[in-house]
This record gives sequence, structure tokens and C-alpha cells, in this order.
Amino acid sequence: MSAYITVDLGGTHIRAAVYHPGNTRPIKHKKIHTRAPKSTVFERILALIESIWPEDETIAAIGVASPGPLNPQSGVILATPNIPEWENFPLGPKLTEYFGAPVYVENDATLAALGEWRYGAGQGHHHVLYLTISTGIGGGVISHNQLLQGFHGLAGELGHVTVLPDGPLCSCGKRGHLEALASGTAIARYVDEELAAGTESSLKPGAALSAEVIAEAARGGDVLAQSAYARAGTYLGIAVASFLHIFDPSIVIFGGGVSQSGDLLFTPFKASLRERVFNPAYLENLTIATAALGDDAGLLGALALVQLEHKKA
Amino acid sequence: MSAYITVDLGGTHIRAAVYHPGNTRPIKHKKIHTRAPKSTVFERILALIESIWPEDETIAAIGVASPGPLNPQSGVILATPNIPEWENFPLGPKLTEYFGAPVYVENDATLAALGEWRYGAGQGHHHVLYLTISTGIGGGVISHNQLLQGFHGLAGELGHVTVLPDGPLCSCGKRGHLEALASGTAIARYVDEELAAGTESSLKPGAALSAEVIAEAARGGDVLAQSAYARAGTYLGIAVASFLHIFDPSIVIFGGGVSQSGDLLFTPFKASLRERVFNPAYLENLTIATAALGDDAGLLGALALVQLEHKKA
Repeated sequence: MSAYITVDLGGTHIRAAVYHPGNTRPIKHKKIHTRAPKSTVFERILALIESIWPEDETIAAIGVASPGPLNPQSGVILATPNIPEWENFPLGPKLTEYFGAPVYVENDATLAALGEWRYGAGQGHHHVLYLTISTGIGGGVISHNQLLQGFHGLAGELGHVTVLPDGPLCSCGKRGHLEALASGTAIARYVDEELAAGTESSLKPGAALSAEVIAEAARGGDVLAQSAYARAGTYLGIAVASFLHIFDPSIVIFGGGVSQSGDLLFTPFKASLRERVFNPAYLENLTIATAALGDDAGLLGALALVQLEHKKA
Repeated sequence: MSAYITVDLGGTHIRAAVYHPGNTRPIKHKKIHTRAPKSTVFERILALIESIWPEDETIAAIGVASPGPLNPQSGVILATPNIPEWENFPLGPKLTEYFGAPVYVENDATLAALGEWRYGAGQGHHHVLYLTISTGIGGGVISHNQLLQGFHGLAGELGHVTVLPDGPLCSCGKRGHLEALASGTAIARYVDEELAAGTESSLKPGAALSAEVIAEAARGGDVLAQSAYARAGTYLGIAVASFLHIFDPSIVIFGGGVSQSGDLLFTPFKASLRERVFNPAYLENLTIATAALGDDAGLLGALALVQLEHKKA
């Protein structure tokens, strides 16, 4: 029997799984740390794939969810903040050469969008907007049942839209992007700056200041922590209103750790969204949902991709 | 022989034409003023269509390019600034009832995008971003050879993305939209406000202050006029950079009167775009073009639409 291998490459972990066609339950599943002494990230990917390669089956194709920006046509990673040594790194061609199987590489957030649409919260919808909010902000769009990839395969970078032209610096080096205003990193940076400016809070500045710690403090009544989430939610609402005007989706799905902070983020988000949408028709029968696939979104999105691409080939 | 009628409903003129299938040269073509004493806009549309209705041919379908937002599925105009009496106006159903032919209604900017893609500057491209800059700013997107319409048919309102959250009021009632910063109206308003604040200029405040008059003054060396175009171009660059990150098109087409101001707008626009794009890969082989179809873009877009829809039906 033939099978697919999919890989989800994250900043801290690499996951891989083996699937039979038409089945979303993996026959093998493994997770390792992205970094380890004495081996490169690419060597760790090779070793992980080898370790789950089934003995008595043919691998029809390999799908990889990778941080981007990347070119899905060539399989080349242009640049990625968490793996700075990969500039113009031909991940797809190198894996194909090593394993002798077709390899499809796509942006991890794009694949999470595809996964949620095919197997998760977006099932049955024809127009899906997906945003993942964690350290950064990524996105993916399905419009008329078609994944938007664009001319160079670089579409859907929804964290890198400008929301405040003179706003804070983004991880990409530009100013005022959604990611610089509403990601976990942005929330922590805002609190850090306010603490430095003397704002009173139960929080302490420093490396331990994460979006999770701030969420806990906010739930405990800390006013600065609450305002940090309110600010992020407000900017998120401004951006999502623009996305509604642009794409007019029937569902907006939120994935990523920060989206699990619940009302802290979503109450100000929804108020901001309602205030900013220029015609109430955009909100009619619009579903706002959280992602259903959890940590497997990338693996399942890559599975949807390889099945789609492999049929075409 | 059967033929198609298309109508382009503008703020000042209504155009209509008759086409044979597969031919973009109209067999009849007529233009009237949108407003006249003693008749409603709808009555003028009826009279215009009747006046060009061919005697010896069957009309297979009628296509209408209308200002929006509107619902292309139902043919209902939700609201439109230039015809305020049309709130939830069932333009499509009323025309179908009157003429007994299938009627397809779409947003005028969306249809101009479709027209430019099928018959104009965007031919051969699979990923097209179209922006029309005149009194307002409208848009349309073709991605993977598919016109983006969205769940309620309200996609592509690219003039209504937020570029400056606390910026000037937009015609739609919300703040800081691209239209409120880079349209002809926005350029004139900026000059008017600067004049009121005492900035020196050859221009005089008042109703005669249009984007065209300001362009003339800018070419004559007026510093305020030049800065008004520079400001609009800068904001346009910020927005288009976001659109590249979102859609990754292979061509950006500019239509509308203000886009004919040439370097005045496009020099600052291009500088701003280059500064704001977060990865140079978006600009590789990207074409920036002006619209090729002129005043007929709406009529030809409606022709493309009726031919497409009529085949499906």
C-alpha cells in the first residue's frame, strides 16, 4: 500500500506523521526538538523522516509545512526568522534528492488554513479566513474553494499588513504590521515598555514576560495586563474588518496560542470589528471560530496538500 | 441572432451598449446623464436600455456595473453614496421583471477589474490586482483566474481598508480608509485644510478645488499641490504593499481619473511601495500598469460577466 509522510517544522519542535490516503488518523506520529547540538535543522528533519518511514509501504509523496516566506513552486525557503541560516534554502529539492519522492513545501499558516478547511473548523465553508496568533501572526485564505497562493506563492501573509504606518517594528523589519501590534510578542513588548515607563502592575519586566503570563495577570485583575490584551484585540479588529472588506469570508478561524486567551482578546476584538466594518452585511451569518485541529493543523494541512497535488501530478 | 446588453451606472453618466457574443466591439453604444428633472435614476436606466434595444435580435442577458456595496447573487444594491435613494434597492429583480431577460449586477470596480483582465491590461495574467482611483477608490481581484466575490458578494472593497486608524473620515463613515487618504476627494480635502491652516499656495479654497486642478498646480511648481500628491502616493504605496503581501499578484492595474496624474502620484507611490514591501520577492516580475479600456472598462467587464454567467445558466 502507498502512504504519505507529512512534516510540520516549527521553531521549537518538528513533527512528522505517516498517513494512508483518505485517512486523517496517522499510522505513525513523532515529535522532536528543532534544535540539538552537533546537527543542523535539515539533518534533524532527515533523521525524523527516516525514523518514521514505514518498512513495507511505498511513500507516494512528502508534504512539508514550513515557516516562510517560501516559494511553493520551487520548494525554496526565502528567509525565516527562526532558522536564520536558511536563506534561499532549497528545502524541497534537497528532500526530493535524498528520499527520491515528490516533495511539496508550503507555508505553515497557509497549510493550517487548508487543514482547518478540509478537516477542521472550516468544513463546509467556501470562503475561509484563517489567522494564527502566537509569537508571530500568520494567515491563509480559501476563496471560492481555492487556496490563495499568488503569483510567486507568497500570498496570505496576513500578519504583514500595515495597520499603523508609524507603529512598532515588526519581526520582518517593517513598521506597524498586524504582527507588531497583536501577536504574543507584541503584547509582551507593550507591557515591557509600559513597565519601563513606570506604569503600575503586578508584572515584572524581563524574559519571563510572555503573553501567557500576562493573560494570567489580566485574569487576576491586573489593569496593565488587561489593557495590553485590549490593545491587541482592538488592532486585530481593525485588521480583520479590512480582511472582511477584502475577502468577505463566511468564517474567520483563529489558531495559535494567543487565540486561546478567550474573552481577554476576543471581547475587545469583537467590539473593534463591529465598530470598523463599514457595512453590517459583512457580519450577516459570519462565523467566528477557534481552530479545531490543535497541534496537528500543519500536519493535516500538508496531508490535504499532498493529496491534492499528487492527484494533479 | 442573440445579443447582450451591458450598462455602466456612474455618478454622472449612464452608459449602455449592445454586443454580439465573442465580440468586444459594440453594435450600439449610448451615454446619458444619470440625473435629469422629472425622472428617477431607475426610469432613466429603463429608457436608455429601451433606446438601444435592437429590433431584430434576442437579448440573451443584461449585465449591469453599478456602484456598491451590492449583492451580486440577489441583484440588490445595499447602499451607494451617489444614489442615496437606493437603499436595499432590488435593481436586478426589477430589471428582470421589466425586460423579461436574465440580469446580472456586479460592483463597477469589480467589473472593471474583470474587463481589464479579459480584454485589457491584465490579459494573460492569472493574479490581477485592480484599483480605480477617482472620487473614491474601488478595487477588484483575480486570483488563480478566479474573480474574488466572497460569501455575500462583497469582496474586493479595497478602498475601504484601514491604513491610518485615526485618520480622516471616509465617504463610508469610517476612519482612515485608503479612500479617505488617496482618492481625488482626499487630495482636494487635504489641500483645502492646508489652505485653511494658512499654508501658502497658488491654489484657492472652495468648490473648484479638484484633483485635476491640484495636479495642474503641482506641475506648475506649487509646493502644497505637490505635497498633496506625495501624501496620497505614500499612503497608496502602504496599502498596495499590504495587498501584495495578501494576494501576491503578477500585475497591479490602476484605473480612474486620478491615476492619470502620472509621476505626481506614481513616483511617491513607487518609493513608498519599495520601502514597505517586506520581501523583495514580491516585486520580482511584478507589472505596474495603467488601465487600457478607459471609459468602457465597466461595459466590457459586464460583458465578460454575462458571457461567463450565461454559459453557466
